[in-house]
Amino acid sequence: MRPTSAHLAARHACVRQTLDMLTLDALVLTCAANIRYLSNHAGSSGLLVLTEDAVHLLVDFRYREAVQMLQQSASACPGLVLRDVPASYDEALLDCLRDIGVSTVGFEAAHVSVARHDWWQRTSEARSLNVAWRATEKVVEQARLVKDAPEVETLRDAASRLAPVADASFRAARAGRTERGVAAAIEAAMRDAGYERQAFDTIVASGPHAALPHHRAGDRILAAGDLVVLDFGGVLDGYCCDLTRTVSIGPPSSEARRLYTAVYDAQQAAIAAIRPGVESTAVDAAARSLLTARGLGDAFGHGTGHGLGLDVHEEPRITRPRPDVPSVPLVPGMVFTVEPGAYLAGFGGVRIEDDVLVTETGCEVLTSVPRELLAL
Amino acid sequence: MRPTSAHLAARHACVRQTLDMLTLDALVLTCAANIRYLSNHAGSSGLLVLTEDAVHLLVDFRYREAVQMLQQSASACPGLVLRDVPASYDEALLDCLRDIGVSTVGFEAAHVSVARHDWWQRTSEARSLNVAWRATEKVVEQARLVKDAPEVETLRDAASRLAPVADASFRAARAGRTERGVAAAIEAAMRDAGYERQAFDTIVASGPHAALPHHRAGDRILAAGDLVVLDFGGVLDGYCCDLTRTVSIGPPSSEARRLYTAVYDAQQAAIAAIRPGVESTAVDAAARSLLTARGLGDAFGHGTGHGLGLDVHEEPRITRPRPDVPSVPLVPGMVFTVEPGAYLAGFGGVRIEDDVLVTETGCEVLTSVPRELLAL
Repeated sequence: MRPTSAHLAARHACVRQTLDMLTLDALVLTCAANIRYLSNHAGSSGLLVLTEDAVHLLVDFRYREAVQMLQQSASACPGLVLRDVPASYDEALLDCLRDIGVSTVGFEAAHVSVARHDWWQRTSEARSLNVAWRATEKVVEQARLVKDAPEVETLRDAASRLAPVADASFRAARAGRTERGVAAAIEAAMRDAGYERQAFDTIVASGPHAALPHHRAGDRILAAGDLVVLDFGGVLDGYCCDLTRTVSIGPPSSEARRLYTAVYDAQQAAIAAIRPGVESTAVDAAARSLLTARGLGDAFGHGTGHGLGLDVHEEPRITRPRPDVPSVPLVPGMVFTVEPGAYLAGFGGVRIEDDVLVTETGCEVLTSVPRELLAL
Repeated sequence: MRPTSAHLAARHACVRQTLDMLTLDALVLTCAANIRYLSNHAGSSGLLVLTEDAVHLLVDFRYREAVQMLQQSASACPGLVLRDVPASYDEALLDCLRDIGVSTVGFEAAHVSVARHDWWQRTSEARSLNVAWRATEKVVEQARLVKDAPEVETLRDAASRLAPVADASFRAARAGRTERGVAAAIEAAMRDAGYERQAFDTIVASGPHAALPHHRAGDRILAAGDLVVLDFGGVLDGYCCDLTRTVSIGPPSSEARRLYTAVYDAQQAAIAAIRPGVESTAVDAAARSLLTARGLGDAFGHGTGHGLGLDVHEEPRITRPRPDVPSVPLVPGMVFTVEPGAYLAGFGGVRIEDDVLVTETGCEVLTSVPRELLAL
């Protein structure tokens, strides 16, 4: 479901509250996902200037007609002022700010490079534009952290379509196939499932490769006794889903079973910990303490999960306490992955990943694929 | 062909010359393509600190084993010091700089956000690290502008594999098929051709959609009389290729033929203009003046081409003279697209795109797919 004008209006109101608090006349958005969230414009280029009463969308020639079509639909962006970009987006931005006559302008410090910011500052001064640039952080991301109704509907739909893709991956992962061949079968199944594209490069990591959490898919041929990590996800109407299963080629060794059971139990513990008010770090701790108790603390080198939405890696981050990643209390409407893993160099690894939605009482697991260790 | 240690050493020498010129003790690289170019490390995360005598590569747990494998091969990075990132890349970077004891440190102003730079500056001061941060622009991109032998070999291979993909697209583009169905056939053919992934989202734009240069592929059903723009590309060993053909479903109208011939002639004119010493803007002018003479100047709203390499859009940009895009004289070893187009709202559009390598005497067209208008 594409957000309607009413949904966009609610998002604008939420972000405008922050602008008021920060005493900003306008907020310049450069992050494509944030621009899409506020306007339904899904192009890879664009700039958006949100003010108290308007949404100025700057797009070049390539997107003009698509935006005009959007504005004829039920998903039109309220208050939209469409502005052409004849050549440079940065030139068009300064022209727009001059027209609007705003003076205190926020920008997304995490989505503007030092080079671009320097140019804005230098050029607005040289042209005697009365603009004070103010760094902001996560103004729109804060709104995106809790999904609204069309987002939840799309994320639920996206996650549910992973079931037939997982089935296809289980049919494909057989001794004698290459990792790349299995990845191709997964990607064909993702297209058949209706995803517009992959959310990330598919991972098929077999045998010792399974100990490399971000190995992609190579020429290695699957062989009896391998553990194979299958990690894939699709994008549906802009929203990302993400699933990992680990399978055994032929009967698993007792070491493989031990590793699998530990990760399985860690994931169950993390999912059981999820409910409103619980800290994101507590969900990570639930998985991590279980793996540590099984002697696998050092084998689990990444975080337990990440938010899903217009980005495949967004907030909330489900990690240990880290100075650069603030812990957040969970709130109904948050959507994230739960994906503990354990990796033993030379031997292989296991990761099990599902997508969850925080509800009033706990969580809803959006992905519905069997989690037991399959011997294929 | 993966660059050998000798190729990497030559790249290091080239970039170190620039460091000398800028009197920098070290250069911090945050751009993944630049990191890969200097180290052969192809992970999506990583930081690289290049000094006069070492290449410090900072990677987290996920990539450690892959880098260790790389260092056992003929493509090992000379002078590599592998540094673990236990949690935050930014913390690890400051630890690294403290260890090395450098004081004047360049960073990539186009690839570091204002937020990240602020943190570096604030935290290095708070910890009494003696670091003066200096913004740099395009230090590694300057080296990447002219491709070396393994790059040319890979780009030639990547481009040549587009021929069977184009054939598959011509077989698929028939009346009654959806745009999405045609895109699926193209993507399956790209996998069969051996690409590791798509270089960008495949475009199948039919009928009036063909007037939207960045329309992707939707539910529209191809019908007799449509012009259909087919734009796709793959990534081979990290390097991107990019091809566009426009076909007619059934016999083209005389207006469609007129549009096609104009774009065809414009592309021929641009290709004929390419040779060492010619300005990039002159190549654009060759295409643009021809389209303008046919009354289609306003229908050609984008640039004539873009560089290809580790990024699908890199330098050189083949555009009109623009304050933000400096014109560059062509040099043997540059690789870029030549892709004029003409778009008429409501009617449709035509784009024809090939990939070229600048040679000593002119250029070599790397893509070999017939350019005549096909009626399918």
